[in-house]
Amino acid sequence: MPARYTLGIDIGGTTTSLAVVDAQNHVAREKRFPTNPEAGFEGVLRRIIEAAAPALERYPCAAIGVAVAAHVDLRTGILVTSPNLGFENVPLGAILQEEFSVPAVVENDVNAAAFGEYLATPMAREPLCAVFVGTGVGGGLIVDGDIFHGADGFAAEIGHVPVVAQAGERCGCGQRGCVEAYAGGPAIVRRASARCRGKATFDDVDAVVRAAEAGDRGSADVLEEAAAYLGVALAAAVNLLNPGTLVIGGGVARAWPALSERALERMKRSALPASLAHLAIRGALLGERAGVIGAAALARKSPASGPPGSRRTP
Amino acid sequence: MPARYTLGIDIGGTTTSLAVVDAQNHVAREKRFPTNPEAGFEGVLRRIIEAAAPALERYPCAAIGVAVAAHVDLRTGILVTSPNLGFENVPLGAILQEEFSVPAVVENDVNAAAFGEYLATPMAREPLCAVFVGTGVGGGLIVDGDIFHGADGFAAEIGHVPVVAQAGERCGCGQRGCVEAYAGGPAIVRRASARCRGKATFDDVDAVVRAAEAGDRGSADVLEEAAAYLGVALAAAVNLLNPGTLVIGGGVARAWPALSERALERMKRSALPASLAHLAIRGALLGERAGVIGAAALARKSPASGPPGSRRTP
Repeated sequence: MPARYTLGIDIGGTTTSLAVVDAQNHVAREKRFPTNPEAGFEGVLRRIIEAAAPALERYPCAAIGVAVAAHVDLRTGILVTSPNLGFENVPLGAILQEEFSVPAVVENDVNAAAFGEYLATPMAREPLCAVFVGTGVGGGLIVDGDIFHGADGFAAEIGHVPVVAQAGERCGCGQRGCVEAYAGGPAIVRRASARCRGKATFDDVDAVVRAAEAGDRGSADVLEEAAAYLGVALAAAVNLLNPGTLVIGGGVARAWPALSERALERMKRSALPASLAHLAIRGALLGERAGVIGAAALARKSPASGPPGSRRTP
Repeated sequence: MPARYTLGIDIGGTTTSLAVVDAQNHVAREKRFPTNPEAGFEGVLRRIIEAAAPALERYPCAAIGVAVAAHVDLRTGILVTSPNLGFENVPLGAILQEEFSVPAVVENDVNAAAFGEYLATPMAREPLCAVFVGTGVGGGLIVDGDIFHGADGFAAEIGHVPVVAQAGERCGCGQRGCVEAYAGGPAIVRRASARCRGKATFDDVDAVVRAAEAGDRGSADVLEEAAAYLGVALAAAVNLLNPGTLVIGGGVARAWPALSERALERMKRSALPASLAHLAIRGALLGERAGVIGAAALARKSPASGPPGSRRTP
């Protein structure tokens, strides 16, 4: 009898999550712990293996899906680069496959989260475009039931849509004027702090939101600008991709619930009415679990996760 | 023996083209004439039928493909709306199918042109994104050998990517700040004429280019701005779609050959280096024939163009 479960692992810059997920994408068991990337790849891996072993013993899993904040070579399961984790050229898929003797697939975390949200949306009209506004502004695109990767795995990078053509803010990617440089969490904190000249700076987006609610004009302006530029980037995405469903989520969207509403108002002033006419818009449903559920579902979907005889050998 | 040829018809706002095309996408016979949309749909249709009849007699065609400057219902072959032609809700596919007793497919002209350019590119790395800068700024996207339509047939509308977030130029679509409002032919002519206060205005992009070459500062600035904003929109397309191939063509690109080079320079300052690393960039190869060749190829590809027994009845 084939195993009913797959194991999802989501390795983020701050937190790592594991979840045993069934064929209906319900979580049977889960665990979260700090990633501590400063412990190096070996340290992070040891912690994952320690957490996964008892889960796999209790719930036999047909395959493992890993979502990781990294550029991934999908074919080989190699983590190529990861600015957030500091790891490079790690054969993550092969290591886990070897360790647990089940197939392992590796995917970028934002793509996996988009796939999770797609599965959580009954009757989603495709393409589905998911946008997560958090530390970065990430996007994932689902076409014909699959993640759309583009030529090299870099499709749906909505965070780097240019929204200010001249003298834009510097972005972490090295370019200027990307929407992430206005709407990402650290960008909001930095920009609000800069407008607070002489006064206290902010620790996080929550603090900026509280200051805006308490009447701080600079904080309110920074938040409104974040939403407006996010709206411009969403309009670019709608006009280029003509999605059937648009999902908005992420930590900043949770910290400032008005973000989506304001961004969508702005989007509607720049998106083609024909592309908006039938667009379904909704908030993300899975929260921080989207990546781990999406990763587990990708593992189930992968041809490598068939019965043992059909398994791909690494 | 199945017919070797298909007939392509490209109905533009100004010119209509017919071409008999073989299985290698070579043109065996072609004809061009003014569309004269003011003669109404009946008049335009009569002219097309008169031109097609002798071609079809000489070259038996398995199917007809129509490229039209319109929003098209792909399933039914109905021309839904066409601001450039002034026609609405015309069952174009069914009419031609009835008239010539062969299957007819109908497609948006920019999408058909993108498909033509795709076929003209040996070993094109996908996705292929084709951008045509002419009266409008149109785009087409080819994924897995097919036109990518999005949810409602409006994908790849690169002309309406917002490039100026605040107080942008008014675009023909009704929104503000679209790249078409800076880089489309009429936009260039209008903006250059406006900078010529009191002096003569321009008839076309060629005249603006000549003035710029003769040292007119305003004309040169308008052209440079067109290229810069086009570059910003291309960067948005590259970051969202991660194309393997980018094709640039259209009448404005032909009238001002520096357009592509300047736009690409600007694009490279806003596109993700990872998405640019393997991007193949080239000029359009088919010129004004792209639409008619693409339409004929779509007719060949359509399941409706099989042998008579398998034909879809309308």
